[in-house]
Amino acid sequence: MRCGVDVGGTTVKLGFIEDKKIIDSFSIVTKKESLFDDVFKKIKEYVLDKNIILDEIGFGIPGIVRNNYIVRMPNVGIGDINLDEIAKRYFPNTKIKSSNDANCAALGEAVCDDENVNSSYFITLGTGVGGGYVYDGKVVDGVNSACGEIGHMFIDYIHNFKCACGLNGCLETVTSATGIVRLAKKYYSQFKTSIPEEMSAKDVFDKAKENDELGIFVLNMVSEYLAKALAALAVVVDVECFFIGGGVSKCGQILIDNIQKYYDKYSFYAVKKTKIKLAKLGNDAGMIGAAYL
Amino acid sequence: MRCGVDVGGTTVKLGFIEDKKIIDSFSIVTKKESLFDDVFKKIKEYVLDKNIILDEIGFGIPGIVRNNYIVRMPNVGIGDINLDEIAKRYFPNTKIKSSNDANCAALGEAVCDDENVNSSYFITLGTGVGGGYVYDGKVVDGVNSACGEIGHMFIDYIHNFKCACGLNGCLETVTSATGIVRLAKKYYSQFKTSIPEEMSAKDVFDKAKENDELGIFVLNMVSEYLAKALAALAVVVDVECFFIGGGVSKCGQILIDNIQKYYDKYSFYAVKKTKIKLAKLGNDAGMIGAAYL
Repeated sequence: MRCGVDVGGTTVKLGFIEDKKIIDSFSIVTKKESLFDDVFKKIKEYVLDKNIILDEIGFGIPGIVRNNYIVRMPNVGIGDINLDEIAKRYFPNTKIKSSNDANCAALGEAVCDDENVNSSYFITLGTGVGGGYVYDGKVVDGVNSACGEIGHMFIDYIHNFKCACGLNGCLETVTSATGIVRLAKKYYSQFKTSIPEEMSAKDVFDKAKENDELGIFVLNMVSEYLAKALAALAVVVDVECFFIGGGVSKCGQILIDNIQKYYDKYSFYAVKKTKIKLAKLGNDAGMIGAAYL
Repeated sequence: MRCGVDVGGTTVKLGFIEDKKIIDSFSIVTKKESLFDDVFKKIKEYVLDKNIILDEIGFGIPGIVRNNYIVRMPNVGIGDINLDEIAKRYFPNTKIKSSNDANCAALGEAVCDDENVNSSYFITLGTGVGGGYVYDGKVVDGVNSACGEIGHMFIDYIHNFKCACGLNGCLETVTSATGIVRLAKKYYSQFKTSIPEEMSAKDVFDKAKENDELGIFVLNMVSEYLAKALAALAVVVDVECFFIGGGVSKCGQILIDNIQKYYDKYSFYAVKKTKIKLAKLGNDAGMIGAAYL
């Protein structure tokens, strides 16, 4: 049995996993004073109660982590944490692993894919845009733990919006939930639309499915940017498949089909067959991936 | 002792290497009827003459190769070759390895770097633009053997020149030797210049060093495109360092310094410190890298 822990700003999700299946899972409120003690206590309680042996505990960290040392978790507001030191008080003989949460989600999708992919790149479209790279069945963290920060690839030379990171034209500025709303607002007056003026990204894509002109325009534009990013990724890492996840991807296959349409146009001939798939684990991806670090 | 073989369209270079040093090297004229037999005979002759034991023979192939099966070498005009079958007639007990020639050059530079880098991306600027990715000390081929085909990343939305691959705006169209000449010709009438009208890429960069206005303009433009490509690579793979090689890089540190200037501007904050280095092995990179596959 393995345990995967997905640390979030408001809750920590932990799951006990066997053969890629979640046997049991729990949510704990994130308390910055006692976060990891709370987690290990919960795991200990479960292990003793069920009388099981844990092979590994893996952590998905929303921030920078290296060799089980957490530099900082901006959304939790704490950092400088040595996971191994806390762990050994509860599980002195269990393997402890950790990686960035997007990397864990990437690994979760890869591990649970039907075709058992060996190399893949995961793109998560949420409030921001992030990603994770899995090579040879393992997460690639990168030397600065910045592998997968593809939200900050330069992609949009048309609007060249300022990104929160300080750069301009980042992928995130036009394909995150915020970016989708930004585009819809920019073109609002140019199309016939039933999208409300105070909209969410979900509104935009829901209306696109109902053939709303603005909705379709924005969906196509977002898909084109994503396809260009994937075309670049494909020649850089040449993976078996791309997974598209995060809240924005909940609009479903219509997004994938649109990305595919532009990917066919912009991709180099040798990588035209790289698969583009909808991530399927949703919020469990990070927890499951953490268990397989 | 290891043997590295760099297969080219006109000559095949082979070297005997120990502790990253070339002990002896030979050039053989590329004959497509007997290419690999010629190579193995030469190796056999050397091995018997010097009475040495070979641990490994590695091949850098100018084309697509998978598991020692060469699909096609366009510039040699042959393909469908099973390297293992030929090898076992000469060296039944020696490990045979193979990869794309750009990947081998990437590995060569990584292996021979003073800082012993573990992950790096090599960009070669020649007639075309290619590259190779080294992760965890090993070459990443990619599922379609297309890893490193970064010459075909979309990068130039300004001129959007047609690339030989069929796409538009590829990195290769503006940073290869041909691309540099293309840019210099495009802007020829707009600057005071002593670059001859029938120019080479070397002429353009040589004149840039002499403060020729057109030369400097093109050098800056090429450097800016390369820096944007490196900034994208950095968030995708987050390697320790980039190596810039190929004929164009012979203009030296001035190119690196210019790329660095734009890299500082366009790169994501977490990868600002990624090193950009001039490749130093020149034509020997592929041969040395092949020996370390």
